[in-house]
Amino acid sequence: MTKERSDTLSLLKADLNKNRLAEAVQLLADLHPADIADLFEALDEHEKKKLFRELDIDTASEVIAELSEFSQDQILADLPHQRLGEIVDELDSDDAADLLASVPKEVVEEVLASIDVEDSREVRRLLAYDEETAGGIMQAELLAVPQEATIADTIKHVREHGKDLEGLANIFVINSRKQVVGQLSLRRLILSDPGDIVAEVMDTSVRPIPVDMDQEDVARIFQKYDIISAAVVDSDDNLVGRITIDDILDIVEEEISEDVLRMAGTHEDELNYGDQIWKISRYRLPWLITNLFGGLLTGYLLWLFKVTLADAIVLITFVPVITAMGGNVGIQSSTITVRGLATGDIDLHRLGRTIFKEVRVGLLMALACGLTIGIAAELWHHNPALGFTVGCAMAGAIVVASLMGTLVPIGFKQLGIDPAVASGPFVTTANDITGILIYLSTSTAFLKYIVR
Amino acid sequence: MTKERSDTLSLLKADLNKNRLAEAVQLLADLHPADIADLFEALDEHEKKKLFRELDIDTASEVIAELSEFSQDQILADLPHQRLGEIVDELDSDDAADLLASVPKEVVEEVLASIDVEDSREVRRLLAYDEETAGGIMQAELLAVPQEATIADTIKHVREHGKDLEGLANIFVINSRKQVVGQLSLRRLILSDPGDIVAEVMDTSVRPIPVDMDQEDVARIFQKYDIISAAVVDSDDNLVGRITIDDILDIVEEEISEDVLRMAGTHEDELNYGDQIWKISRYRLPWLITNLFGGLLTGYLLWLFKVTLADAIVLITFVPVITAMGGNVGIQSSTITVRGLATGDIDLHRLGRTIFKEVRVGLLMALACGLTIGIAAELWHHNPALGFTVGCAMAGAIVVASLMGTLVPIGFKQLGIDPAVASGPFVTTANDITGILIYLSTSTAFLKYIVR
Repeated sequence: MTKERSDTLSLLKADLNKNRLAEAVQLLADLHPADIADLFEALDEHEKKKLFRELDIDTASEVIAELSEFSQDQILADLPHQRLGEIVDELDSDDAADLLASVPKEVVEEVLASIDVEDSREVRRLLAYDEETAGGIMQAELLAVPQEATIADTIKHVREHGKDLEGLANIFVINSRKQVVGQLSLRRLILSDPGDIVAEVMDTSVRPIPVDMDQEDVARIFQKYDIISAAVVDSDDNLVGRITIDDILDIVEEEISEDVLRMAGTHEDELNYGDQIWKISRYRLPWLITNLFGGLLTGYLLWLFKVTLADAIVLITFVPVITAMGGNVGIQSSTITVRGLATGDIDLHRLGRTIFKEVRVGLLMALACGLTIGIAAELWHHNPALGFTVGCAMAGAIVVASLMGTLVPIGFKQLGIDPAVASGPFVTTANDITGILIYLSTSTAFLKYIVR
Repeated sequence: MTKERSDTLSLLKADLNKNRLAEAVQLLADLHPADIADLFEALDEHEKKKLFRELDIDTASEVIAELSEFSQDQILADLPHQRLGEIVDELDSDDAADLLASVPKEVVEEVLASIDVEDSREVRRLLAYDEETAGGIMQAELLAVPQEATIADTIKHVREHGKDLEGLANIFVINSRKQVVGQLSLRRLILSDPGDIVAEVMDTSVRPIPVDMDQEDVARIFQKYDIISAAVVDSDDNLVGRITIDDILDIVEEEISEDVLRMAGTHEDELNYGDQIWKISRYRLPWLITNLFGGLLTGYLLWLFKVTLADAIVLITFVPVITAMGGNVGIQSSTITVRGLATGDIDLHRLGRTIFKEVRVGLLMALACGLTIGIAAELWHHNPALGFTVGCAMAGAIVVASLMGTLVPIGFKQLGIDPAVASGPFVTTANDITGILIYLSTSTAFLKYIVR
């Protein structure tokens, strides 16, 4: 948020709290709906509700489509159903379906009954698809022409039906069974001669997207083939919707953000929760408590080896570095693996290569860190046996950590579990435990040389 | 990579290694350039070079534009300059500039001298901009019409000059001083009447992008305002280029991926390095060695308090859990802060709010984890003073870790240092040290109650 926006926010809050509602609305007059939505996100719940009531229906529908799900839910909670109906009527079918997805079923029925029949049929159809699939992100508004149409027919069709289709870039071409056979960019439409037949000038290189494809795969296809908009088809190849690249942009960011935050043991919603510390803690705490018991287990291992430790208290000084390095190596390997799986850079059909690479990188780092810590230990405590023990344990812990960081996300992926969610906590805790186990058993084995 | 693609790759490698080059090229015949590029990424360096030499110039230029910088560099290393010239001639100006950015200056001069004068002038102009700014990602190919033109004039202009402009979605509108005053979508062009004046139907809501704007900010603007393509202007508001949303998609992914991988102590290039374990280690090792010395410092603190520890060996059992929890809380806070700064959800002008929120979340988690570990310690060792000490130390370590995880990235951002690069290693190591310091001082203070 810029300085200017931040000042507007302060004025807005002041107006709302002193009930100067006309002034508050006036502040938003020249702003883009996306900027108004930004201001909304920074308001408290009751301020959001109060301000939203004052917006005209056009602005209200544009703004609500830009809001986070969290703010939408707050505003929808006690919005009169009639006003919700008016808003749904204004929205594109995909935004309407997204908005209604979190509203109780009986309210949805009431709202859909109050709007245009054709619109409500489309929204109802979109609501039936899983939110995270092609069907969940597509919109019903699109243009299609038969493959035998001429360019002149098509231009006429666009002029008649394209008025409400903002962002239209392509027209889909269908055969007599309503199957998608190609698409035609508006540029191609302008460049072609009026008498040309659509089937002869259309582009057949962009394959239609199956309606049940996961949104992450849809995004990957758009990204890879530089697609601007694609047709969505059902299992009979019939045209059921359209996905445009601006929706994809949000998905790409969402999906990566989700991965990152989940690996760190929290949740993407947190960014929208503002001051709701209970909700934020609800995401973070389970992970912390899990790790707490993992940490206690590591401590229990130290307790089991307390005879070794009491004999050579000097061994304790390397406990933090062994656990820290296992954690770090594990985070590096698991992060690169989770990203590689997400981007497709890691090929599930050639896993041997990935694992072999990680083992070699792990060995190289084990050698470097093992030597460094071994020399450091010797210089510090003047005890070559100690240096040897610590160096070996460090090297072993690093090799195990890098293997675990690679294999755990791949294993979860194979089992159909999100590697990002599972990898973070699992890898960190597991590496602490194995690291300490390796260190303490090595130390016990060499104890008689360490204690002189 | 699908099973099918993986099989193609095996065939391709076999053909290349047995010098059946015609068969190798034949395998690629029906593939999209993006799919061919995928196969290239999975080849060894000499296989890439060998195969690239066999591609016709059309395919070669389409494929090289899709390759990672790493593979581009490998192929360019000993590509004859004449062939490089032919490829540059085929490419869009932005792809040509990207490709030449990593080629030695004298080769660039030689190549540019060999191609069309107009093209070389444009590429030279683009090469002058910083790669990570609007100038670095824009292309020179665009259409612009004067604001007094009619729709009929504009359609004629598109038909005459739009043949090579794939993906064209908008035409820019300029005044007599060549300043951008608006844009016109092809849809609007088709919907308008031939006699309409451009200035009357154009869209003025999309503001032109300054040529020196950082690419991350450009991406944020595209994302926020759902822009498909935008004009890029110099400091006099003169039109100098065009940015399209498909370039933005790559930037969004790149920027987040960069943040994630750097926070984990590695680098985005690693995903392209394949089997090059030395290069991969070069990224990971500095971070590991830094953390190794951080870990030794933590160990040194344990050594300083060895009298305390020798008196109550039981204290050792909580060392791993204290450092692990400090690390986890620090990662949660710093990840959410780095993401919040990147998305703009954290407002640098209202920092107090973010910090206050994080302190309250930290306190809540400190309370929960402190109580849990305190009770666990008492149940395990039947020593209430120990439980109290460990619980207090844990709570203190968590509050400090969450504050540090929030303040460090914000501080780096304010200093103009990438918060993602700096936060990961710094926060982790710092939290280990402060966590242990808090634990050991608390233990020393309560030692007489713990040792009974």
